[in-house]
Order: sequence, then structure tokens, then C-alpha cells
Amino acid sequence: MKLEIYDTTLRDGSQGAGIDFTDDNKREIAGALDALGISYIELGNAASVSDRNILSEAGSLGLKNSVPVAFCSTRRAGKSVLEDEALAFAASCPTPCVAVVGKASRYHTERVLGTTPEENLTMISDTVSFLKEHGKRVFFDAEHFFDGYGDDPSYALEVLHRAHEAGAERLVLCDTNGGMLPDVIGVVVNAVHTRFPEAVLGIHCHDDMGMAAACSVEAVISGCVQVQGTFSGIGERCGNCSLSTVIPVLQLKLGFSCVTPEALASLTRTARRITESANLSFNEHSPFVGGYAFTHKAGMHIDAVRKRSRTFEHISPELVGNRSDLLISGIAGKSAYQAVLDRIAPDLHITPGSPEFSAIISKIKEYEAKGFQFENAEASLLLVVREALGRRQRFFDLLTFRVIIGEPMSVNPKSLSAAWIKFAVPDEDGALHEEFAAAEGMGPVNALDIASRRALSGFYPTLSQMRLTDYKVRVLNSASATTASSVRVLIESTDGVSVWRTVGVSVDIVDASWQALRDSIEYYLSL
Amino acid sequence: MKLEIYDTTLRDGSQGAGIDFTDDNKREIAGALDALGISYIELGNAASVSDRNILSEAGSLGLKNSVPVAFCSTRRAGKSVLEDEALAFAASCPTPCVAVVGKASRYHTERVLGTTPEENLTMISDTVSFLKEHGKRVFFDAEHFFDGYGDDPSYALEVLHRAHEAGAERLVLCDTNGGMLPDVIGVVVNAVHTRFPEAVLGIHCHDDMGMAAACSVEAVISGCVQVQGTFSGIGERCGNCSLSTVIPVLQLKLGFSCVTPEALASLTRTARRITESANLSFNEHSPFVGGYAFTHKAGMHIDAVRKRSRTFEHISPELVGNRSDLLISGIAGKSAYQAVLDRIAPDLHITPGSPEFSAIISKIKEYEAKGFQFENAEASLLLVVREALGRRQRFFDLLTFRVIIGEPMSVNPKSLSAAWIKFAVPDEDGALHEEFAAAEGMGPVNALDIASRRALSGFYPTLSQMRLTDYKVRVLNSASATTASSVRVLIESTDGVSVWRTVGVSVDIVDASWQALRDSIEYYLSL
Repeated sequence: MKLEIYDTTLRDGSQGAGIDFTDDNKREIAGALDALGISYIELGNAASVSDRNILSEAGSLGLKNSVPVAFCSTRRAGKSVLEDEALAFAASCPTPCVAVVGKASRYHTERVLGTTPEENLTMISDTVSFLKEHGKRVFFDAEHFFDGYGDDPSYALEVLHRAHEAGAERLVLCDTNGGMLPDVIGVVVNAVHTRFPEAVLGIHCHDDMGMAAACSVEAVISGCVQVQGTFSGIGERCGNCSLSTVIPVLQLKLGFSCVTPEALASLTRTARRITESANLSFNEHSPFVGGYAFTHKAGMHIDAVRKRSRTFEHISPELVGNRSDLLISGIAGKSAYQAVLDRIAPDLHITPGSPEFSAIISKIKEYEAKGFQFENAEASLLLVVREALGRRQRFFDLLTFRVIIGEPMSVNPKSLSAAWIKFAVPDEDGALHEEFAAAEGMGPVNALDIASRRALSGFYPTLSQMRLTDYKVRVLNSASATTASSVRVLIESTDGVSVWRTVGVSVDIVDASWQALRDSIEYYLSL
Repeated sequence: MKLEIYDTTLRDGSQGAGIDFTDDNKREIAGALDALGISYIELGNAASVSDRNILSEAGSLGLKNSVPVAFCSTRRAGKSVLEDEALAFAASCPTPCVAVVGKASRYHTERVLGTTPEENLTMISDTVSFLKEHGKRVFFDAEHFFDGYGDDPSYALEVLHRAHEAGAERLVLCDTNGGMLPDVIGVVVNAVHTRFPEAVLGIHCHDDMGMAAACSVEAVISGCVQVQGTFSGIGERCGNCSLSTVIPVLQLKLGFSCVTPEALASLTRTARRITESANLSFNEHSPFVGGYAFTHKAGMHIDAVRKRSRTFEHISPELVGNRSDLLISGIAGKSAYQAVLDRIAPDLHITPGSPEFSAIISKIKEYEAKGFQFENAEASLLLVVREALGRRQRFFDLLTFRVIIGEPMSVNPKSLSAAWIKFAVPDEDGALHEEFAAAEGMGPVNALDIASRRALSGFYPTLSQMRLTDYKVRVLNSASATTASSVRVLIESTDGVSVWRTVGVSVDIVDASWQALRDSIEYYLSL
């Protein structure tokens, strides 16, 4: 059975803390959702001036698979639909579909809206009718439906009835506060389905009890056809139902159809791309799409995964475009190290029986004790492995650097940091040559980055092809953090073809950055 | 009805990526769990050498409410219990209770253990009996129980029967791969409960489908008495069932008793403390205990929350020691700004009708457009509000600074950065005095921090009482991040009594750090 997936990342998702989409972000996200084959994309709230640009562009976004939707509230109590500016915008903007939110709770109607239950019903039917007359398909979001049903079921059902009668094509049941248990959702959806057997029902859950996915799935089992949510669960408070979680659960575990199998296999990439567009850090522990979702740490698990992947994985990660991975750590057994070595250095043919094996392990542990983590920095790990084997090739030795930071840029925006750096670089005969360069940059790390490439480019012209694509800083020992705490810097680099990640640790952020930068350059030269 | 909460943060939680507890971490976490009144604390794995210190200390940890538990596997196939070193350790270490994990799946027994189903059953009964003979209470963790039950229910039940018969006091049903839906968990737990009506059942879920909490709750409804999980859901892959989520759900929504109401009111603090001990960043979107769990952003929600908190909160946040909060942002209505102004600057008596109101809003938006976020930096926000009102007091003006970074510390560990900084400081008559100082520090920010306090301490001796307690760096625009990307620095400071947070944004991390540092000093002087 085919389900409708309704994405509200751009509307309800934007209510999350720290989220503020630019128009470019919105276009990118809409494009990614369309490519995934999401049925409906809620582009924005007609009442929000900053959402009106993207809503006005709905017809020219080039969407191939998704129907764009505008969101708006019912008309105000005691006013005409014609007096409502947001409603007028929703009626005239180029989305074929409008989602109207109205209160489904008598309590909320009286205490929050401050109007009568009967006026609320009229507001709903007036608004739906108005939009229908303007040629829109209308979906009705029944706000606080489950709370309202608990307080006064007949009123909550009457709200749905009025919307349905006025022509709403979907009745979307919202657990606005996120406080419902899956069992309750199931019982109530069943009751609504029995009352409106011909209506198409939707579900909209929030994650305040960590159960939005479970509630949404229960709602589908009980009769809902449309599932609303966000990537990857962003939203106010604890967030909305995560679409990157419910889509694979519904499709792979329960046999519903949400997107094509090919699109499902791009889910991990899409979820990351959307998070990146939103300028949020990705939760690597996210079900299905997280970097750690199929990453095994314990020695015993790793043995099992290597023997037979079904044993410790509930689905094949490839189905959602993810992959199995193994982590090495103090807890991992030899088998784990072995697996990582096989992947990053297959040419070295190291086995737990090799004499080099324990040298490598103790070298890795020595770095880990200083705060290094190689889980996201396998290029640095490979260099450490080579170091342990005495096979680290010497492309350049840093002799020294100096960095001078002038007035703060907030005082003088033209103020740049200056760096000079000096290397000893061996030529083909092993003779050392001093190479140095100076550079200005925005901040000390940028200046060092530019100076290093400049100094080394005479010997290594390919360096002009690589560039940094990400730079992350983590303060260690945060319980006792001060400006002298250790920091861990992770750098991601690319030459346009492959991507590699390196790490540095120091009490000095410039030094930590330099270590990661040095590893990045050295790794690239060793390819 | 009283439930048993079983914490495995220190054992199964330690399998999470990037987690490596020191013995001190373990002691702190055990202490926090005991204070919360958790029934059982799994201190570690008897097979892991690094866990044996804390297991050996079990009797001297001073636990008042919690029973410490050691974890171990069944004896090996084809070997005697007497040949098993980990088992010998578990039998002799000073925990009154041992959790034995054994396979409950015929498939896993044959394919992963590589032994016969009958030998597996004997391994289980031998191990349980051996530990009972050594005076231990024994819990049995039935690994892969739900998968095993699906493949071969009679074998899975026979596994439980052998453990039960040998004297295991708890039969813990594990969804080891985290791939089960709540409905399935409910049906299977019911079947087990029917088969072993006198046994005490437990549930152990993983969050690979984002449903660990829902599955655990369903298991309790279906007859489980013990709930296993971690704080706050840490663990391998997507993590374990989060105890900070299931405890309030079970207690507040379903009326079970897990901890005392007083302990529940410390849940937020405890969850944070445990995360801090684990040196992990806290997920502020966590249900119940996250900093954003009851934080409202949208203007319309904020109006409703201010009017009547029940309307947009599914529980009273105080029950779990959390609080309601409001966020300001481009989306928030005037009511939201009003609420924040009331809190941070009650003395200013600003209302949306005040002429100053729109000046404040546009000043805040001007900073936000540069990448500032004041959600976690209200001290900086207060300074911005005062700036908009022309009431920002001038304690010092930065004239300039220079920072010189010498050789990298990874090349020469004794290498320090040097900073000198010059301020104009007004005396009581408004006359300006140049004050400057130089300092060395570990890295440029540390050097600037020390130099600033030194330069200003002549005029402001109270500065010696304040110190930095946290320092966080976030790279903005990560999609196009390079070493020249903007960074946002958040600094937390204290004078031993109160805590305040400030923010700075710049392409130069030293400049951004300086801004946050400057605000921190200025805020403290203005108190």
C-alpha cells in the first residue's frame, strides 16, 4: 500500500532552536526532498513574511515529484475570511495545495483562542470553503486533536466533520504537545477511521516522549495514509517525527510503499544534505542514516558482524544508502583492529599474528591517551599506522612557524593575521632544502593554511588541487574547560574526487589545527 | 506498581562511539545513579580488564540505594566453568548480583557461537548454577531473544526455561539489534509471561528504529518489571533505551513507580551530570531533560504558554526538574521578546508599546544576521539590549592587541603564545587612562584572557574572582567551511556564585573568542 509522506522541515522544522533558513537553504532542501520523491513539501507559513518568497516561487522550483503546500491558520474569530491577509496570500500564492490548521480541542478554543466552540467550527468551514473556492486542494491539520479527543471526543470529531464537509481532502490528526503514547494514538485513530471511513487521514507527531516514530507507525497501522514529519526530526522542543526514521520502518519493516527503492537507497545522503543545508550538526546516532547507525564497537559484536552481518544488523544498511562500519577503541578486540587495518591499509597485510600488530596497537593507544580519536579521521590513522611501522614517508619537516595576530577584526575589519612558515623538504636524492613562505589570512589558521601550501607548492605542485571542506573544533575535558583546555580539531579535505579527514589535538587551537592540516597535506601527497 | 530500573551506562553504554570512561568517571556516574535511586547499576564487564577496578570497588562505593551488578557471558562452548577466567572474576568480585548473557537464538548459537543448541543450553544452566553456588543473585540476559523467538520460539523459550530452572531471578528479554516494533515486543512479552507466570521479566532495547522507549513501555504494559537502559540513551550504533525518557513516561504517564517524586525532580540535573562525567555533549533536544524540551519558539505557542502552560506542555517541567523557556528569533512574535526582556532586564520595564521596543528588536536582528545566537548567551543579549537603549556602560575600550604564536607546541612543548593588549579605561571623572599588559599563555586565547585581566585588574580588582568554566567553538556555514569560515564562540564564566554565558562571532577564532571574553568581563563588572 502506498503512503503519502508530507515533509514540514521548512515550516514546523524551522521552529527548532537555532534554525533560521535562508531562501537558498529552502530551495536546496525542497530540491533534495523532491529528488527523494516526498509526496508533499510544506514550503512555509503564509503568515510569516520571511516565508513568502519561497511560497511565491512554488511554481518555478522545478519540482518533479513533490506537490508544494502553503500553511496557514483558520480565519480569526469574529472576523471575515476577507479580512485575513495571510489567508489572502495562501489563496493566491502558486501552491496547488494549502494546509489549514485549526483547533480540535474545546479547551484550547475557549481558553487560548478565547472564542466559542461554535465560532471555531465556523472559522474552520469558512476557511476551508474560501480556499476551495480559490481552486486550492485543502488539507486540514487538527491541532491538539488527541488532547482534544481526550477532553471532549464529540467536539473533536465535530471539528473533523466540519473540515471534511467543507471539502478538506486530508484530515491530519496532530499530537501537538507530543505527549501521547502509541497505544492511545492507535485507539483514537481507529475511532476516527470508523467515524469517517471515506476520509483520508494523516498523522503529525512531536517527539516529546521520544515516541514520535512509534506513534506515527501505530497511526498508519490503525488507518492513517499520510505521515507528516521533518528531516531528520528537527523542530520545536524535542523535534518532530523524523522522516528518515519512519520511512525505512514503514517501508522495510511493514511493507508499505513511501518512496521508490532507489530513492530509499539515497536516504542517508539526502538526510545529510538537508541537515547541511540547514547548517545543523548531524546526529551521527540517528536511526538508519547516522554515521554510527551500523557501526560496531565491541569486540564480540565485530566478530559476529564479520562472520555474518545479519546477526547484529536489523536491516542491510545498503537499503538506506548507509554502510557497516567498525570502530576501534580500548574495548575492541583484535578482530576490530584487524578489520580497520584491512580497510585502510590492505597493502600492508597485517594480521593479529604479525609481529607489527602489537606495535601498531600500542602506537594508536598512545595517541588516544592524548585525546586523539580516529573514528572520523582515518587519514590520520593511516599515518599513525605507517609511523608505527617505520614507513611514514617524509615529504616535509616543519622547522618552525610564527603567526602574528593584529588588531581584532571586530575593531578593524581589514586586519589580517600574518603567518610565516619554514619547512625542510627532501629532494629526490634525500638532500634537504629549506622552503619558506609567508601569507596573510583571516585568522591564524587560515594564514597558516595559505602559507603552508605556498611554501610547499614548488616541490609539490599537485597541492593546488586540494582544499579544505570542513573544519571542526571540539573542546575536550569540558567539565573543567577554560581557554587552556585541550581542543581536538577535525579537518575534512578534498581534491574534487576523494574526501579524507584528519585530526589534531593540543591545548593551543592553532597547534591542533596545524597538526590536522599537516596530516591532510601529507596524506594527499602519499596517495 | 513498583518497577525496577537497571542502568547499564557503564557497561553497554560504554560501547558507544567516542566513549571511554576513566575509573573516576565510573565512580561519579555510579554515585549519581545511586542518588537518583536506580535499582541496579551494572558496573562493568567481568571480561574487560579495564572494568575490573570498579567491579572490585563495588563494596566500597558507598551505594545507598542501588545494587551493583557485574556482567559476564556464559562459559565457553566445550569448556568447563572452571576454565573461565572472567566467570571466576564475576563469582569472586564484591557485587551481590551478576548478569549473565547467553544466546536465546538457535541461529546465533549455530552460526556465531558455532556450537549445538543443546550445548548452549548447558552453558547457560552451568553458568547460572556456578554463580548461584558462589552466593550470587543471578539475572539472565537473553541475547537476541526477539529475533530468536521469531525464528524458533520453542528454542528461545527453552533457553529461558533453563536459566529460570537454574535459579536466575530475572529473565531479561533483549532486542539486541534494535529492529523490533513495539507491537511485536508486546505480543512476545505476553507469550513469555503466559509461559512463565511466576518469573520476573526484564526488557533491554536498542534504539536502531528510534523506538527503544516505546518498546520498553510496551514491554512493561505486557508484563516486564525490570527496564534496562542508559543515560541518556548512549550506547553502540543508535544507542540504548534512554532511562531519562522511559522513567518519566512510566511514572508520570502510566502511574508506575520507578524512583521517588523527589528523585524524579532531580532527573534533569542527574542526566546532565552523567553526560558531563562521560565527557559527552548533551543533546539539548532530549525528551524531558533537554534544555529545549520545554522551550517554545513560535510566537503563537509562546502566547499560549504564557496564557496557560498546560496548553503546549504535556507535563509540568518541574516534575522532572526542568523548566519552561522561550526563545527569541525571527519567527517569534512580540510576546516572545517581551518575555525574554522581562526576564533579563526587568528593571528596564520595556513593553511592546514602549518606543524603545522596536530599536531593541532591530539591534538583536542586526547581530543575528551576522551569525550571533543569543539562546545560550543571555549575558551578551543583555549587553545588546543596553546598547540599543544607549545604556551600555563603558568600563573599558579595547585600543588594540597583538598576539604572537611561536613554534607549534607539538614541535616544542614549552612554546607559549604571547599577547599584549591595550585598553582605555575611564576613571570616576570620565578621564581615560591607557592600561596595558602582556601575558604568555597556552595558545592565543589563553594568552589574551590572562593579559586582559592583568591589564584591567588595577581598575577592577573584583576580576580576580571570575573565571572561565566552558569554551565552545562552532563553525558556521559548514557546507562551505574552510579555515576562513565564520566561527561562533560561546564562553561560560562564573564568580563561584552565578554563571553567565557570552558569545562572539568572527571569521577569526581569536577575534570571536575576544568578543565573548570582553562581554563576559563587561557583564561581570555591570552586576
